[in-house]
Amino acid sequence: MPKSIQNSDDPLFNFNKEIIDATAEFASAFKVNLAFYEAHGLAGWRALQKTFEYLPDDVVKIADAKRGDIGNTAKMYADAVFKELQADAVTVNPYMGFDAAEPFLRDETKGVFFLCLTSNPGSQDFQHFTNGREKLYEKVAATVKSWNTKGNCGLVVGATHPEELSGIRAIAGDMPFLIPGIGAQGGDLEASVKNGASRAAAFFNSSRGIIYASNGNDFVQAAAHAAKQTMQQLNNAR
Amino acid sequence: MPKSIQNSDDPLFNFNKEIIDATAEFASAFKVNLAFYEAHGLAGWRALQKTFEYLPDDVVKIADAKRGDIGNTAKMYADAVFKELQADAVTVNPYMGFDAAEPFLRDETKGVFFLCLTSNPGSQDFQHFTNGREKLYEKVAATVKSWNTKGNCGLVVGATHPEELSGIRAIAGDMPFLIPGIGAQGGDLEASVKNGASRAAAFFNSSRGIIYASNGNDFVQAAAHAAKQTMQQLNNAR
Repeated sequence: MPKSIQNSDDPLFNFNKEIIDATAEFASAFKVNLAFYEAHGLAGWRALQKTFEYLPDDVVKIADAKRGDIGNTAKMYADAVFKELQADAVTVNPYMGFDAAEPFLRDETKGVFFLCLTSNPGSQDFQHFTNGREKLYEKVAATVKSWNTKGNCGLVVGATHPEELSGIRAIAGDMPFLIPGIGAQGGDLEASVKNGASRAAAFFNSSRGIIYASNGNDFVQAAAHAAKQTMQQLNNAR
Repeated sequence: MPKSIQNSDDPLFNFNKEIIDATAEFASAFKVNLAFYEAHGLAGWRALQKTFEYLPDDVVKIADAKRGDIGNTAKMYADAVFKELQADAVTVNPYMGFDAAEPFLRDETKGVFFLCLTSNPGSQDFQHFTNGREKLYEKVAATVKSWNTKGNCGLVVGATHPEELSGIRAIAGDMPFLIPGIGAQGGDLEASVKNGASRAAAFFNSSRGIIYASNGNDFVQAAAHAAKQTMQQLNNAR
């Protein structure tokens, strides 16, 4: 963050406000990563709530929370993101199975993106575990499809795996994807658009590539420029 | 919660304070489930912090958070639980692999319990996925063991799976287990002690069975009684 923001009274929110104002015209959605607020305790949660309140009405508000726990606990996590933060969608970890997922799915107006094949190197450790016919991430895609009775399920698939995106799209039908990794993580934007967004909606996420485009006093202009460029690259690849 | 607590100025913390005072002499650890605080927004986070501060020094303070995200985000979640809340240990979801786990493991004085075989019905959905030789939860156990270079890794294994506990203990060696499910979830306490705690440390968790033992004005006495009984049952099963 630039020094002028760091020295302000509420750096987290003030930074977000500037970024939102500068980039909203180029964005279909904003993904807010809860970890970066929790790390600041109470002040962080206050900034998190203010940020969700500040987001414009015409963007999809995604709480990137990667939660997942047994049913009675999952209900509380769903309340935290959908009622407290008023998010439109959330990211959820599928490891604990259906009863951990179901409380997030009760409100058909709220979207749930389940981790399928993530953008990080560690996605190799378990997500590729295979029985010879099907890998774990493919089983997750097929299982989430079977959970999608209200039409509010989606999948997280990293842009760092453009080859696998085609296969997951074939399994998932028209479920929307949340595709991180096109910014700082170096994912393949063009191939990801072709393979992930050809038959159905996909949200492409760039975080650090936009918000940290500059840490100088020109950070607002740099973020706007990076957001516009990302939007143009995505549209050109369609 | 009893009405007298519900009507107090800070019900979440006041309830916890009474429960902690009543049960600390019977407990080796307290597991605080973050979801139930996040669902109350700012007031919830304030109560969460006060609860961690109030816990006595001689118990292990476990933040049940089930977090897991890419490296730079995981670092923030680790800061939230270890620095902001001053927890001694945390629960982490292994689905995203090593780089999502590593930031939690940096401080060798902090423990990390990775979800292995969870206590809920949905544990059947993915955790039992098998290549014919090894199930996913067994692969998680073996992989976490390979991550345990600082001796601060543990596994979450539900008491609802006493048979599988022996097999996981054989893979895990002396890694400590966190074993939920002996209370309201109806897990088999005796078999879980025999199979999970025979060769190494295990924390057995009862939540609702203790804190909601009564919702009347006798809730403090009822919680103390349930905690003492649980401790005795665990000791008798050793």
